[in-house]
Amino acid sequence: MKNKILLLIYLYSFGCFSQNENLNLMPWPQEITIGNSKLVINPEFKIAINNKNSKRIDIATTKFLRRLSGRTGVFFENGFAYNTSEIKNATLEITYDSIGKLEIYEDESYTLVISKDKIKIAATTDIGVIYALETLLQSVSFNEEAYFFPEIKINDKPRFTWRGLMIDVARHFQPIDVLKRNLDAMAAVKMNVFHWHLTDDQGFRIESKTHPKLHQLGSDGLYYTQNQIKELVQYASDRGIRVIPEIDVPGHATAILAAYPELASKDTIYSVERFAGIFNPTLDPTNEKTYIVLADLFKEMSQLFPYKYFHIGGDENKGKHWNENLKIQQFMMKHGLETNHDLQTYFNIRLENILSKLGKSIMGWEEIMTPKMPTTALIHSWKGKNEGMPAGQSLINAAKKGYNTILSNGYYIDLMQPATEHYLIDPLPKNNNLTATEKKLILGGEATMWSELVTPLTIDSRIWPRTAAIAERFWSSSSVNDISNMYSRLENVSFRLEELGITHIKNRDVILRNITNNQNIEALVELTKVYEPIKIYTRNKGGIEYKSYSPFTLFADACTADAIDAIIFNDLVKDFLSTKNVSSKKEILIILKKWANNANLFTQIKKSNPILKTIEPLSKNVSEISESLLSIIESDSFESVDFLKLKNQYFKLKNPIVDVEFASLNSLKKLLEYYSLKNKHQIELN
Amino acid sequence: MKNKILLLIYLYSFGCFSQNENLNLMPWPQEITIGNSKLVINPEFKIAINNKNSKRIDIATTKFLRRLSGRTGVFFENGFAYNTSEIKNATLEITYDSIGKLEIYEDESYTLVISKDKIKIAATTDIGVIYALETLLQSVSFNEEAYFFPEIKINDKPRFTWRGLMIDVARHFQPIDVLKRNLDAMAAVKMNVFHWHLTDDQGFRIESKTHPKLHQLGSDGLYYTQNQIKELVQYASDRGIRVIPEIDVPGHATAILAAYPELASKDTIYSVERFAGIFNPTLDPTNEKTYIVLADLFKEMSQLFPYKYFHIGGDENKGKHWNENLKIQQFMMKHGLETNHDLQTYFNIRLENILSKLGKSIMGWEEIMTPKMPTTALIHSWKGKNEGMPAGQSLINAAKKGYNTILSNGYYIDLMQPATEHYLIDPLPKNNNLTATEKKLILGGEATMWSELVTPLTIDSRIWPRTAAIAERFWSSSSVNDISNMYSRLENVSFRLEELGITHIKNRDVILRNITNNQNIEALVELTKVYEPIKIYTRNKGGIEYKSYSPFTLFADACTADAIDAIIFNDLVKDFLSTKNVSSKKEILIILKKWANNANLFTQIKKSNPILKTIEPLSKNVSEISESLLSIIESDSFESVDFLKLKNQYFKLKNPIVDVEFASLNSLKKLLEYYSLKNKHQIELN
Repeated sequence: MKNKILLLIYLYSFGCFSQNENLNLMPWPQEITIGNSKLVINPEFKIAINNKNSKRIDIATTKFLRRLSGRTGVFFENGFAYNTSEIKNATLEITYDSIGKLEIYEDESYTLVISKDKIKIAATTDIGVIYALETLLQSVSFNEEAYFFPEIKINDKPRFTWRGLMIDVARHFQPIDVLKRNLDAMAAVKMNVFHWHLTDDQGFRIESKTHPKLHQLGSDGLYYTQNQIKELVQYASDRGIRVIPEIDVPGHATAILAAYPELASKDTIYSVERFAGIFNPTLDPTNEKTYIVLADLFKEMSQLFPYKYFHIGGDENKGKHWNENLKIQQFMMKHGLETNHDLQTYFNIRLENILSKLGKSIMGWEEIMTPKMPTTALIHSWKGKNEGMPAGQSLINAAKKGYNTILSNGYYIDLMQPATEHYLIDPLPKNNNLTATEKKLILGGEATMWSELVTPLTIDSRIWPRTAAIAERFWSSSSVNDISNMYSRLENVSFRLEELGITHIKNRDVILRNITNNQNIEALVELTKVYEPIKIYTRNKGGIEYKSYSPFTLFADACTADAIDAIIFNDLVKDFLSTKNVSSKKEILIILKKWANNANLFTQIKKSNPILKTIEPLSKNVSEISESLLSIIESDSFESVDFLKLKNQYFKLKNPIVDVEFASLNSLKKLLEYYSLKNKHQIELN
Repeated sequence: MKNKILLLIYLYSFGCFSQNENLNLMPWPQEITIGNSKLVINPEFKIAINNKNSKRIDIATTKFLRRLSGRTGVFFENGFAYNTSEIKNATLEITYDSIGKLEIYEDESYTLVISKDKIKIAATTDIGVIYALETLLQSVSFNEEAYFFPEIKINDKPRFTWRGLMIDVARHFQPIDVLKRNLDAMAAVKMNVFHWHLTDDQGFRIESKTHPKLHQLGSDGLYYTQNQIKELVQYASDRGIRVIPEIDVPGHATAILAAYPELASKDTIYSVERFAGIFNPTLDPTNEKTYIVLADLFKEMSQLFPYKYFHIGGDENKGKHWNENLKIQQFMMKHGLETNHDLQTYFNIRLENILSKLGKSIMGWEEIMTPKMPTTALIHSWKGKNEGMPAGQSLINAAKKGYNTILSNGYYIDLMQPATEHYLIDPLPKNNNLTATEKKLILGGEATMWSELVTPLTIDSRIWPRTAAIAERFWSSSSVNDISNMYSRLENVSFRLEELGITHIKNRDVILRNITNNQNIEALVELTKVYEPIKIYTRNKGGIEYKSYSPFTLFADACTADAIDAIIFNDLVKDFLSTKNVSSKKEILIILKKWANNANLFTQIKKSNPILKTIEPLSKNVSEISESLLSIIESDSFESVDFLKLKNQYFKLKNPIVDVEFASLNSLKKLLEYYSLKNKHQIELN
């Protein structure tokens, strides 16, 4: 591990370096040199800024001091930053030129120089400064005697200008404080776009003053007031983040139609959708009232969101209700619109005109990229293998056609895949055949947090820490791509997110306490370290197992991607099978013993309940096969083991129950195969 | 324990009962009968309301369904309540007459009847209904097969009409979401007044549109916008809680004077106070501008807070700056005001006039009770032993003089005393000499959460669960006062507060992970179970150890009152010393062994840091004396133990370090004394 970090440092350093400080920086900076000395964090720590006109820096420096003090326990004499003219000998000197604008290609670069008695941050904009402060916090190190900053020199700037996180607040509403803490976490990993998916079949989450029925009838009372929206946009801006609203039309519009059925393509009764999936309710693009309502709404929204792009969704409209509506068919004929795609283009172009008059540029999912769409539009690429397409193909197409574009395919964090799956996907892969001009049109990407299966209790553990790995992909050089190095830094970054109130670690135990009715949760904690929620779209098959108000307090909700013991175990097995390393074997046995003991631990829960009963097999299954494997490995033979029983144990473990799967299944399989081969047995586990 | 609960049930039951269901109700209802049957919670659970005009019930029933589903894992078919006319055969039928007003003496009563296939809630007001829903949730029980409601019949109403919690947001600002979750928790234990201590020397936390300098210069940017205040007042109202604002004047006014030094009694430079304590900056009651600013401010506030009472503080003004100000002295002479007390009366009466014109009644800390104060004022009794007065004397005085009054002395939860200290204090003690009319003037009480030493990270663990015990004191019969029964129910109520987002349990581990830099926290967790923060005003002596921006992420901040192992150990020792019970002795040995092992556990933390080093002696001290005690108890002799060493170990443990104290000290002492006596040794531990 150490060597890998050294190598990385070497690759991106711009001068001499000597000592590896094992820094947990993420995103990894473009250029870094590490020296030998330390700047000890003591009560006299003081910050000076060359001018105090930036609210962003004001907030960031104050927060910096609180976080640094909270982390280190050091009692600072000064709790606020000064103007350079006010004090001498500040520990940290900040210089910047201007207030950054939250637009694409704004200068977000910074330099950070830590020497033994002084820290200097310099940046063109205040946004660069707040990023530098985050890097500085990530560099805090300690020994027995002190907390300190290591000597480093960093030159840094983002690879991509659009580094986003989308949160879907329609499927499950997420209160303002959930969003605020996630904005803090985004800023901590230098993300700069919050894409707010505000409407969908399951909810219309914005207070509309011009058409209040929208939030009154489309939200179950769960919506953001315009005051709250203003507050959030300001909160984001203070952290260098712009907010892009999404009003998803003409499909994904059930909640709108619950309020205004007269805008529908089919004359029927609409109510807010409780299931997940792709539904048929669609706005009627031939009805002028549709454009009146949307124009009013877009106008209201454009006053709340001061930025250039406005996301109109536009995805997944199959046009079933269009096909069934005679009036719409006649309209299409009359206007020479041959396909539903043409009709949607007509619709999109009308929206583009509305937005353009409001000074906004249209942004939408890749379906909006049709021949007539002007190249001022921003194309959001999302389709891939799951939709039967090459991953991110629309991104390349969009760039070739002259559109600005961003990538979300590969960054669907709701699918519960390991961080590495996302980390290795590059918005601008090496083997593209784009020209330099076309490459520039690829602005970056967005992680997407669809919320069918998450509530405020669990959303943080679905976003973090994996989104930090994606943030690194958007910011750092494409050559920063060592997986185990990433995981090692990610663990630290993850833990530090607790400082910002992110609940991904602590809410696991909340769920487990609930499941056990406040009994000892140890057995269940251990199970969460090796069971993961089932992936891609296997949980909630067909969208009908769960309703929006179903319980998301189940064991699967306490589990996460990248189960920690599974990662460790899988690495050990890989190492052992390739090297026959004795120490790896020892570690494997330790873990197997822990797993074998789980059934024991589980029986210490004294009073069972219906939920616990459904979980018990998870414990039993892992214990049983671990026992068998232990006896095989320890005896280096299959003598003590009944083959049929063993196979049975394996297949029981392989079969997901209560929406989780055993995350070291493949390693167990390989171990079994290795030992069976070694002992001249044949075991068939497919 | 079982017998005690049975006894209680018997005392407050109004009919026959048979089976003890070990219900964790808190506050305990006025009348309850428990039957034998169960109503199993299944997917068909449905709610019907006789009319759907109450937003309170609408919110409460929806939340009820989410909480019930989340707790039990049952997937409900219906996620919302119906109107009785819409459905047949609802599981839960709700009937009420009117929308409750958030005023004193409003009817908050309810009846709740659970039979094997039907639940009925009936109440005069919708407030009664939401309380009944909380009682119903508290009654959820389970076995291996199902979650269920036990058959019960409850007639319930509060003993006191004013059941408050005060939160000081001046010393440390608490964001809106912190307050919201605490309002949810208040409602869960049937509290109905949130007293919002909005201003103090350390901060002015309200946006003022008439005098914006107040929040601009008095808050470090940490204040509530008027929109947020409206939102919170509505949020509270939806939960049956009225909000009483407090603008603390004429003392505790440094933050106001930082904005308007011209209102000060002393001509000097003011800036927001960073320390804790009682300070001299005071408004000038002889300056007409003082009344202009306050009248404007009160007018703004009275539009935000629709309720009768308005708290003007009025406490702890020593008048030092008045004495030193010639102009003020001349004013006093001219107006025949002999003492500072007279001058403050003059000031208070002017405020009373301003408020009265705004349709408000004045409320203030007990110092406002002066001869000229009209009896429309509400007197807030707070002084006691710590202030050199008999506890709550002003409460009795106020009632005798004809004032409405409430008690806070004895409910200062910031002092980190055990729940029992507060629980046993009655706003209307048995041996009072009040007439029936005077008794009626005692409206209830308020727990006070002063925030010098708490931040959003820790405030919940200072408020809860102890405030639930206080809530029971305010609601239940005075004869509900069995300590161990209270603690047993409190543990469950405490755990259930997690469902409302209260962070008191989960944030302990957040702090410990920070302290260890994400290493194994087991040793520290064990220490928090037996060490408690030092009490009364011993932490932050003189208010100068901590500044408002000092770290509150220390080990003491992870500890709480009522350390769980200490409670258990102390009970065991008490039992053992009085009964010589062998099983108690066994349990004592188990705990001592655990403690003895802590030093061992502690060494498993691999990498130390400056904070960990300060905590290590806590581990060492408890381990050492536990080792000694083990050897004494197990051998029933002192032979193996060096007396001097033992005394030394005891006094090391007795001496609080890092702001915590060993909460079983007295039990250890008694054990040592018992064994030394038994072995005819003498040990001097005083």
